[in-house]
Amino acid sequence: MSSNKEEQELYLYDPSLLLKLDFYRSPAKFNPPITCVAPGEPWLKVRPLKSGDYRRGFLQILSQLTSIGEISEVQFLNRFAEMRAKGDYYVTVIEDLRKNKIIGSATLVIERKFIHSCGNRAHLEDVVVDDTYRGKQLGKLIVVTVTCLAEYLGCYKMSLECKDKLIAFYRSIGYVDEPGNSNSMTLRYDKQANL
Amino acid sequence: MSSNKEEQELYLYDPSLLLKLDFYRSPAKFNPPITCVAPGEPWLKVRPLKSGDYRRGFLQILSQLTSIGEISEVQFLNRFAEMRAKGDYYVTVIEDLRKNKIIGSATLVIERKFIHSCGNRAHLEDVVVDDTYRGKQLGKLIVVTVTCLAEYLGCYKMSLECKDKLIAFYRSIGYVDEPGNSNSMTLRYDKQANL
Ligand SMILES: CC(C)(COP(=O)(O)OP(=O)(O)OC[C@H]1O[C@@H](n2cnc3c(N)ncnc32)[C@H](O)[C@@H]1OP(=O)(O)O)[C@@H](O)C(=O)NCCC(=O)NCCS
Ligand SMILES: CC(C)(COP(=O)(O)OP(=O)(O)OC[C@H]1O[C@@H](n2cnc3c(N)ncnc32)[C@H](O)[C@@H]1OP(=O)(O)O)[C@@H](O)C(=O)NCCC(=O)NCCS
Repeated sequence: MSSNKEEQELYLYDPSLLLKLDFYRSPAKFNPPITCVAPGEPWLKVRPLKSGDYRRGFLQILSQLTSIGEISEVQFLNRFAEMRAKGDYYVTVIEDLRKNKIIGSATLVIERKFIHSCGNRAHLEDVVVDDTYRGKQLGKLIVVTVTCLAEYLGCYKMSLECKDKLIAFYRSIGYVDEPGNSNSMTLRYDKQANL
Repeated sequence: MSSNKEEQELYLYDPSLLLKLDFYRSPAKFNPPITCVAPGEPWLKVRPLKSGDYRRGFLQILSQLTSIGEISEVQFLNRFAEMRAKGDYYVTVIEDLRKNKIIGSATLVIERKFIHSCGNRAHLEDVVVDDTYRGKQLGKLIVVTVTCLAEYLGCYKMSLECKDKLIAFYRSIGYVDEPGNSNSMTLRYDKQANL
């Protein structure tokens, strides 16, 4: 991608937010220690989704999570613009700068409430790390990043829905399955859909 | 409230949407049969939240669900305006017209995604019926209303987080706790907060 094209790219949200996060407030332990600013390798970059990420394999990464369907670049850009205009969407990615490829993603969505003094609640959505990069703390890194971001943005809680086999993963990051209050239930309108 | 004031009120979303819902697609059974358009009693009305509902006890209803804190009318109206501007917030209430009081509420929030062909996913939030009105199918009515609304608006699924004791209630409305994939986990930033 030419540097001219790079300059035209938009961030989904202000990237300077990621410089302000206090990783040491998270109960997650990293060994060796890494943060979103210093993710362990010079060629790894944690940043907001950019409008050019369609061409960096962003959707291919999501396809390791669930079905994506056919999405043209125009459809991607329209959805990107919609999220950006609404605010409250913090799709955060890890790029391998050597390959110009997105290798991980997690989304923080902020929901506005009346309860809790007109509070804001955070939802964690669509967490995935490319299968050839798993087991290197990058899943933890991206989840801790958006979890700290939600706290920085003033949310009173963050929650997620997950499969049984990921409970241990999220517990290691400080998420709790509260006894008697940790069920998610779903109604699917489209019988073809599986997420 | 004078009819002049009534006229100045805003709806959070277009109330005509509620006329278009197909209640008979829902697996929920009502006995006697009621719908959001014909909720069983002439003094009951199912409708979008209105800007005047601060004065109709909307927050008192929510306080039966969790802590609300101190919310002034101005704060309420600011949050209302914010939700209305963003779109995607469908706070739906039941009013007792005899008393000018809100007696139940449920919120549909629509989340924009990239996955599933840039699909939209629905979240069910903050379901409550006034304790003196419980056991009269009104909880089911308001949940079915927003569940049908999400389908009408093109969402591919709707999901919720709930306590163990409400699983039976939501099952009766068609929600499923999928084996191996029905966990919710939470991280609370504010130790005082309880929802
Ligand atoms: C879940 C996922 C994001 C984890 O990414 P990752 O980069 O491999 O995870 P990490 O290397 O950061 O692992 C962090 C810790 O969680 C554990 N862990 C990771 N994946 C796990 C899994 N599937 N089951 C159990 N534990 C897991 C690791 O062993 C590690 O533990 P440690 O800190 O004690 O050593 C990745 O496996 C993935 O993309 N899976 C497919 C998509 C998916 O299921 N997303 C979540 C939907 S709810
Ligand atoms: C949950 C709530 C909204 C139900 O409202 P309601 O008007 O009493 O419910 P309905 O009369 O429509 O009941 C519908 C069905 O669910 C059952 N049900 C209702 N509340 C239930 C409960 N707490 N536990 C188990 N079953 C319940 C009813 O028996 C009824 O079953 P039926 O159709 O077989 O007769 C209401 O109890 C409430 O506001 N609770 C406090 C707030 C809360 O917990 N909200 C949910 C947060 S996850």
